[in-house]
Amino acid sequence: MSPAAAVPIADATHNVELLFGLFLIFAAAKLSAEIFERLKQPAVVGEILAGVLIGPHCLGWVTSTEASHLLSELGVVFLMFNVGLETKPAQILGVGSTATVVAVLGVVLPLAGGYALMRTPPFSSGVSNIEALFVGTAMVATSVGITARALASLGHLGSQSARIILGAAVIDDVLGLLVLAAVSSAAQGAVNVTELGLTALLSIAFIAFMALFAAPALTRAAPHAVRLRVGNAEFAVAVALCFGAAAAAVKIGVAAIIGAFLAGMALAEAAEKRHDLHAQVKGATELLVPFFLVNIGLQLDLSLFGDASTLWLSAALIAVAVVTKLVGCGIGALKLGRRAALQVGVGMIPRGEVGIVVAQIGLALGVIDSRLFGAVLIMACATTIIAPPLLRPLYGPSKALAE
Amino acid sequence: MSPAAAVPIADATHNVELLFGLFLIFAAAKLSAEIFERLKQPAVVGEILAGVLIGPHCLGWVTSTEASHLLSELGVVFLMFNVGLETKPAQILGVGSTATVVAVLGVVLPLAGGYALMRTPPFSSGVSNIEALFVGTAMVATSVGITARALASLGHLGSQSARIILGAAVIDDVLGLLVLAAVSSAAQGAVNVTELGLTALLSIAFIAFMALFAAPALTRAAPHAVRLRVGNAEFAVAVALCFGAAAAAVKIGVAAIIGAFLAGMALAEAAEKRHDLHAQVKGATELLVPFFLVNIGLQLDLSLFGDASTLWLSAALIAVAVVTKLVGCGIGALKLGRRAALQVGVGMIPRGEVGIVVAQIGLALGVIDSRLFGAVLIMACATTIIAPPLLRPLYGPSKALAE
Repeated sequence: MSPAAAVPIADATHNVELLFGLFLIFAAAKLSAEIFERLKQPAVVGEILAGVLIGPHCLGWVTSTEASHLLSELGVVFLMFNVGLETKPAQILGVGSTATVVAVLGVVLPLAGGYALMRTPPFSSGVSNIEALFVGTAMVATSVGITARALASLGHLGSQSARIILGAAVIDDVLGLLVLAAVSSAAQGAVNVTELGLTALLSIAFIAFMALFAAPALTRAAPHAVRLRVGNAEFAVAVALCFGAAAAAVKIGVAAIIGAFLAGMALAEAAEKRHDLHAQVKGATELLVPFFLVNIGLQLDLSLFGDASTLWLSAALIAVAVVTKLVGCGIGALKLGRRAALQVGVGMIPRGEVGIVVAQIGLALGVIDSRLFGAVLIMACATTIIAPPLLRPLYGPSKALAE
Repeated sequence: MSPAAAVPIADATHNVELLFGLFLIFAAAKLSAEIFERLKQPAVVGEILAGVLIGPHCLGWVTSTEASHLLSELGVVFLMFNVGLETKPAQILGVGSTATVVAVLGVVLPLAGGYALMRTPPFSSGVSNIEALFVGTAMVATSVGITARALASLGHLGSQSARIILGAAVIDDVLGLLVLAAVSSAAQGAVNVTELGLTALLSIAFIAFMALFAAPALTRAAPHAVRLRVGNAEFAVAVALCFGAAAAAVKIGVAAIIGAFLAGMALAEAAEKRHDLHAQVKGATELLVPFFLVNIGLQLDLSLFGDASTLWLSAALIAVAVVTKLVGCGIGALKLGRRAALQVGVGMIPRGEVGIVVAQIGLALGVIDSRLFGAVLIMACATTIIAPPLLRPLYGPSKALAE
């Protein structure tokens, strides 16, 4: 037995720092959200900027620790679970073909655009073919959490364009991870086609299982929940499903948030009109989401803006990232009218943590350097901050005053 | 800039293990709680035993990681915050003198009892004076989380004896930490009386501030909460207060859970009849508490029971721990009648994580050895598991069928 290793020693200094850090992150996020709401700006942006302000590159009050990272991950998992709970499978399946076109065009254009930019002078100097491919890959996957959060606080999560965005984000994530797997294996030698095919098949099977089998089974089982004796049984079952599906998604090779979203969607009908269950899930979500948003801000290094070449590269990447998603996804949704197409296009812009993760893998593989990494980081943060203020006028006045 | 260090690389294997571990802990806890409820046994014990079962010393499915430890700490913080929300300051102040007597007797007897046991043959062989004092100190502080959880699920959190237990636990914790500070500094050389006095003064000032100033101020401010624009503003304020008070408590030298309890108590009147706020806090609590309970079980090494001398020592420690709290706290509450005295005595038995923390500090200082550490660990877990089944018959049939 190694007792000292079993539990970290309760070190008072560590505990003060941990709890004070959590307090600072949470309070700064909510204070900033309140200020942004009063200025009629999106609270999401306020919470991200709170992270920039208190982060290591500005005031230096908090840094991204293992604790804030864990809570951030749980935050986006619960955020997407919550969004899933508001989304019935039939609503997504009903927009399935449009969502697929939106997703495919929204993958192809940013990948091609990012690659082309990095092969164009002056940006192409010293950039290899595989490096350009990696930058393109980092521009592929939409980070739907930010859009979902913004749409929820605008009271438009139930609109048709919101459903297309959610459906497209699920497909987009699967495609994005297949591209990442292909590019990563190309960077390390040869592409394993069998493995890629297997990941694709498993992803499709998982989505079909959750939407077509788990959802009706849970809806049938819901009336029997009263037989459970444990306190808050419905919430306990919901959380276990959320964790289980998130773990299964990562195991298959898809992002955890996709599993959480699918778990929420599978429960949407079963959970309908269960006010306490919704309030409890909302409590867990509202506790954790500020850590997700602040953590994005914590990663933005303002000193990167001091270097002119990084600045120009970032600006070019941001422009390509915005235009390719806007055009690609917008064209995919054009048959719904120009306004809806714009809503979908803008809603798919944020790359958030997905782009950062791809860039980190590139950095870890030694494929991209720290200057390119910095530029991708700025692109990911900027696209995240740009989208919510654009969504507000596109969706018109807020339907729900309180979220 | 060191981008790779800023955020841990999103390693798919790490993510699968993390999410699967969280799923296992949560699902095992809730499944076990359901089984225990059906067997008419306390769910709390079921969740702790689930931790023993899936832990490193039994099935080996999960170990105590930094992630489970963080969620465990947040779990007990929210548990006590939730309990505080159900407790108005006047209710605690009304039982203040009884609670003080209960706390003082409940500190003196276990300290003396534990010390005396370790100075009595055969247990005294090879045990120094300071080692005996440390074991006594590990027996001082009640871990009120377990009792609060059990009383809440029995629907008796509002009873007079429950209020005495909560009040006594707050005072007991302050006294326990003063004893720990004194014994720790004695082990390292000399006792700093000035520092001890300062900690005592700060603790009393903090408790008085929260009960006499913060509580009425928050009650007066509550009707103005509607002016806040941010979504779920009441919940955001409540969580910020909880984190802030927990951090302040640790900074002063008291346990984080005492700060969280006081924050909840300060909000109790302001939060009255705000159903959604209570449901949201309950959601956050129910998500995190299973990690606290399972984490206790994860730390219990069953192989310790293979060594006869450790086994006898543990048995003696458990007996002394149970009898000294039962008698000390029972006598303190005797004027309320024998049944209430027994309820208070039993409710104060659990040592839980507080005893473990003291033992760990002793181990880190090199004052106690791993055999004594193991015995204290068993004592802490056993007293935690013993209390809830004893509380149930003492409080009679459950008032609330669902918690």
